[in-house]
Parts: sequence; structure tokens; C-alpha cells
Amino acid sequence: MPKILAVNAGSSTLKWKLFEMPSETQLADGLIDRLGQEDSTVKIKYGDGQVYKDGHPIRNFQEAVADVMSQLKSLHLVEHLHEIKGIGHRVVAGGEDFKESAVVDDAALLKIQNLRDYAPLHNPTEAKYIAVFRKMMPWTVNVAVFDTAFHQTMPAENYLYAIPYEYYERYGARKYGAHGTSVRYVSARAAELLQRPLAELKLIVMHLGSGSSITAVQGGHSVDTSMGFTPLAGVAMGTRSGDVDASVVAYIMNKLNITDVNEMIHILNNDSGLLGISGLSADQRDLEAVEDTDPRAKLALDIFANRVAKYVGSYAAVMNGVDALVFTGGVGENGIDMRLRIMRHLSYLGATVDETKNHVRGKETDLSAADATVKTLLVPTNEELMIVRDVFARL
Amino acid sequence: MPKILAVNAGSSTLKWKLFEMPSETQLADGLIDRLGQEDSTVKIKYGDGQVYKDGHPIRNFQEAVADVMSQLKSLHLVEHLHEIKGIGHRVVAGGEDFKESAVVDDAALLKIQNLRDYAPLHNPTEAKYIAVFRKMMPWTVNVAVFDTAFHQTMPAENYLYAIPYEYYERYGARKYGAHGTSVRYVSARAAELLQRPLAELKLIVMHLGSGSSITAVQGGHSVDTSMGFTPLAGVAMGTRSGDVDASVVAYIMNKLNITDVNEMIHILNNDSGLLGISGLSADQRDLEAVEDTDPRAKLALDIFANRVAKYVGSYAAVMNGVDALVFTGGVGENGIDMRLRIMRHLSYLGATVDETKNHVRGKETDLSAADATVKTLLVPTNEELMIVRDVFARL
Repeated sequence: MPKILAVNAGSSTLKWKLFEMPSETQLADGLIDRLGQEDSTVKIKYGDGQVYKDGHPIRNFQEAVADVMSQLKSLHLVEHLHEIKGIGHRVVAGGEDFKESAVVDDAALLKIQNLRDYAPLHNPTEAKYIAVFRKMMPWTVNVAVFDTAFHQTMPAENYLYAIPYEYYERYGARKYGAHGTSVRYVSARAAELLQRPLAELKLIVMHLGSGSSITAVQGGHSVDTSMGFTPLAGVAMGTRSGDVDASVVAYIMNKLNITDVNEMIHILNNDSGLLGISGLSADQRDLEAVEDTDPRAKLALDIFANRVAKYVGSYAAVMNGVDALVFTGGVGENGIDMRLRIMRHLSYLGATVDETKNHVRGKETDLSAADATVKTLLVPTNEELMIVRDVFARL
Repeated sequence: MPKILAVNAGSSTLKWKLFEMPSETQLADGLIDRLGQEDSTVKIKYGDGQVYKDGHPIRNFQEAVADVMSQLKSLHLVEHLHEIKGIGHRVVAGGEDFKESAVVDDAALLKIQNLRDYAPLHNPTEAKYIAVFRKMMPWTVNVAVFDTAFHQTMPAENYLYAIPYEYYERYGARKYGAHGTSVRYVSARAAELLQRPLAELKLIVMHLGSGSSITAVQGGHSVDTSMGFTPLAGVAMGTRSGDVDASVVAYIMNKLNITDVNEMIHILNNDSGLLGISGLSADQRDLEAVEDTDPRAKLALDIFANRVAKYVGSYAAVMNGVDALVFTGGVGENGIDMRLRIMRHLSYLGATVDETKNHVRGKETDLSAADATVKTLLVPTNEELMIVRDVFARL
């Protein structure tokens, strides 16, 4: 039985999961945190709820990968590392080059590096990790799985901004979206739960978490999505603004004497969203805990629900109708109150939920009220499973 | 019978209409163009289709007002200027200070000047004209009628951006909207045509022209609107981008080595929208003429229809339903094909139009198909009439 690693790498974290295929059994779930610092930590969940924890300096990507390889053996997750036949790498930006997951050869690796403009904080790191894994585990097939690939089916009228066309032609300035791997998994699963062919369905997937996006999925293809050129756009998020009038961005820069637009983008990515409105927290649980006494916490939650509902409404117009709404992501799966808050806007679509059924976290559930004409589902996402499936298909 | 002037002043144009009240009879429609240049022109339509035309240098606002006063008398539109009891001035930005039209005393004039940050190209000019009219026709009641005032009823969850809250508190960074006078007129008229109380209705007004905005009107009050801090946001327009991801704005600035964000905003206001996509024209008639052979002209029209339909969908979610859609503005009133293009997205709402009825320009019409459950109306706007009504109410 081949084993496959799913890797999600950041500049200071390395997350991985090990699966056995084709049974899709998850064998382990690992995290290296604070990489590059003196107090790096390693945590691996495996077996029957066992947990391995350790702390020692891990200075660079090579040492991180060596550490993973060493733990895989010492915890007997593999007897020989050659059991691992493939590695799937989450990559943030695939641009227009990658319309689906791709085996990473030298040419593909160069393309991923060259897409750094679209995700300067992510693609270079991800490309380096892929190179390290290829070098240190040279017998593996390495597959890049892109957050953007699923959205490459969007029609031009949805992916283009109404800006001078040459900005698209010359610089690739367009909507790419994100969360594609999640939405692809969740859409397929929703069709199974609805017992209808995905090809016939109009779905709106709400992937809600610290980053949130809404996607219109028609016939199994993404036709529009709320994130934009980068994940900054769309609905309000934990710390991201989502959509703002460009002129208010310029106005604030003038007021604050900010001359570097990248500094302003940093504020919109990191100090805005629920955190910016509430002045308190980016975490909806913190806000829900105090919303009865803190009007700005309540306002932040109302704005979040409002923006999500507006995108759902607009995507019903994009597809001229909708068969089912799907909640996923940390907030979508666990935010019992937030789901109701959003759905309060949407009964006009025929989408109503049963409050008792809605009292659920993280479990596949049909939340719909008995008389709902548009179904509402909860489908926990599983990006890693989608990643290893893509690798397995390419072995 | 009192006469009332409605004035719409720009930096190089002065448009005015003269009405007799309370009969609401329009007596004349005047335009001074190329003010401040050697070849200024004057054109006045009056009476039974008579037209007065003249060309002579008009150097400043004082001379422009003196010219209007002189023509009013020489064309016998008034026998004595004292017949003009009131003057209504269109003002672009009213901020949070003006929630309705206001008689302009010295304090109000100062406030209008102080709102220049929100409309640097408009408020200073408009304030100067008001001062000139007050000085030269001191017996008149001067009333400022704000594009933004009607939208002051929006709830905070719709007018706030998800950015640090202090930007709103300190600098007034929020959504103000525009076209409020038009939407107010059209909403009231739509209720009359529907023979239902405005207080009970959920309307979505599409004011479509070279500038376009969509407004959700619930119970006669604006609850959300697509233009933002300035008219740049919302749907794609003639030359304005409408909504764009702020990160793509920064990306383009970096690519083009634009260091002044105001320069980028200028591009988004003047070189974008239908003009930017098509590379051809901001005028939909030009694009419709060639769309069969010019893919980018077709794309621009598709994007416009798409963005309008998305806002309609999102505002159905904001109000959790809609009773009627209303087309107004130059394109809304005359764009036979564009209306159909937009409505193709919206039959899921129960909003369908009769193609024969839709074959109409600039005339109040119920466009709805026989089986439509959501009505679609065409209501020509009349901002000047709304302005003089506001003045008349304050005499």
C-alpha cells in the first residue's frame, strides 16, 4: 500500500499529513512550529490518539525535512521511507499556468518560483520546500496542488477587473481566487450527499474561517469566487478587510501620510476585518462571548454575516439560481450562531435551516428545514485528502 | 406662482432649470459650457421648443450667474428676478452632517466647504456658486440638495468598511454613496406605479448611466448602495472601475512604478470601466454597434451586465427579498439590450420582463412579463424636479 505525504509549508511552519492509499487512511498529522528560532517545536498526532512532542532548534528547511523523515521512521509510521511514493504540496498561486495539479519537474518548479509576484510570501517558500523534498527523497513523485487551479474555469466576465485591459495582458492582473482545493473537495461531497450529479448542480460554497471565500460552482466548475488577485478581496475576514473602495484606501493613505501603498495593503491584510472593526479580536468566538455588552463586537459579527450573505445573493445571480448552499471551513463547520446569522438573510431564496439540525459542529449534515427549496449543507473540508488523491492519481 | 431654479454646477459648466411651483412646470433648461475659456457657450431651451444660443467669454462664477440672471429677464422667463423665490443646488458630498436637504446659511456653507475632502473636485465649486447666488440674489432661499443624503439611513453594517474602526471615527472613512436624489425620486414614483405604499416595499433601483449605482430601498429608505466613499466603487462604469481588489491596485502601481496613489485613483476613475476593458469607448452605444465583431466590446458589455446583476442579487440578500426592480438613468432608461442582458441573470428571483414591453425608451413602463412575481419597472429619473420640490417645501 503506497503512502503519501501532504505538505503545507509556511516560512516558519511545516504542516504535514501522512495517508495510506487507496484506503485514504490518515496515519499521522505533524506540525513543526517556530522554525528558524531557538525554540522550534515538533508535534505529531498518530496511531490511536498518541501524541509525540519535542522541542529543539530547527534552523532551516533542510533540517525540517530531515526531522520529518527521522520521525516517520522512529514513530514506525513507515518502516522504510521508500514506502512514501508521493508528496503533495499545497501551493498558493498557480496563476494561469496551472489549471490543475501538476507533477513538479524542473520546468514546473521554475514556473512556481516565477509566480512569486502573485504570492510573494508563499510561492518562494513553497518552491524551496518542493526542491528540498525532491532532493532528500528523490524516489518520490512530487505534485503541486494549487489553491487557484480550481478557479481557472471562471469566465472572463467574472475574472477580469474593469481596469485597462493591458494590465491583464501584460501583468496578469485578474482574479485568481483561493481555497480552490477545499471548494473542489466540498462540492464533490455535496453532490454525493444530495444524491445528484455534480454536473447538474448550482452550488454556492461558503468556506469560512480566518480567511473566508464564497464560490459559485456550476456543473462542478468554479464560475466565480470572492477572493481576488490575492486573498485580500471578498468578504470581511479575521484580519483582512475584504472589498473596500479603492478611493477610501487612497484617502486613508493621504490622511495618515502613508506613501508606500504596500504598507497600506499590510494594514488591510493584518489589522482590518473583524479585528479592525471590533478592536478586540479576529476570532469570532471571542466576539460572540462579549457581543451582548460590546456593540463593536456585535457589529463585526453582523458585518461578517452581511458580507457573506451578499456574496451568496450575488452568486445566485451569476448562476441565475442555486440548488444548495454549503458551509465549510473552521467557522462554517463550527459557527452554529454565525450560520444562523447568515441564513437570516437568505430565506427569500427558499434556503431555510432547521435550528435543531444546525446545532452541530464539524459533521456532514443536511441543515435544511423540511420546507426548504434550496438545500443547506454542512460539509467539513479536507484539503489534505484532496491533495493526496491528486498525488495518487499521478503515481 | 413662485419660480424656483435648480442648479447643477461644475468647474467649467453651469446647468440650470427653471420651474414654476407648485405646478412643477418646467419653464427653461440652460447650460453654460466652457466657462473660464475664451469660447464659452450659452444654450437655453425654453417655451415651445425655442432655443437660445450665444457664445461669449464668461470668465468666472460671478459672470456666469450674472449671465443667467440677464438671460432669465431678456427671454422673459421672469419679468422680475424677485419672482424666483428659491434656488436648489445639487451638492455631491453631504457627509454625515446632512441627512436631508438644507437651507444654506453661513454655518451650512462652511460645512459644505469643510466636506471638500470627500469630493475635492465638487464641493468647493458648489459652495462657491451657492455663495455667489446668495450674494447676487439675496432675496432667494438657497437650499443644498445632497447626492449622499438619501443614503444616510443605511445601517452601520452596510456603510462601514471592515478596516480599523478609528479610520471611520477620525476621518469619516465609510460608504456615503451617490445618486441619492435620483433614487429618492424614482423610489417614490415606483411605489405610485405599483399602487402600493412605499413603506411596505423592498425595491432595488438601478441608476445606470456613465456613472452607475445600485441601491436597496426598504420602506422608502436606502439600506445599501453600491457606490462607496466616492462614486468609484460598485459596478463597472463608463470610465470607472467599480470594485477592485486593493491588492491588484498596489500590484499595478508596483509594476508601473506609480508612487502616488492619487495617480492610480485617477486611472481607476478615468481610464477604466467599459473604456478600459474595450479600449474603445465608455459609451455603451458605441460598444453595442461593434460587439459582434469586437470581442472586447462584447466583454465590456457582459461585464457591465454581470456586475449590475450581482449587486441586484446581493441586495435581494440584504433585504431578504425584493418586490420590484427599477431601471433609471441614461442607460437604464434607453438601453433596451442592456436591460435584457441584465435581466437574463435574474429570472431566479421571479423577475422576468416582456421583451415587447421592454422595447421602450425614457417612458414610465411596467416591463414585467405576465407571470413575473417580482415586478420590473422603467422610471425616468428627474433629479431637478426633486431638487425644486425640496426648495419649495422650505420656502
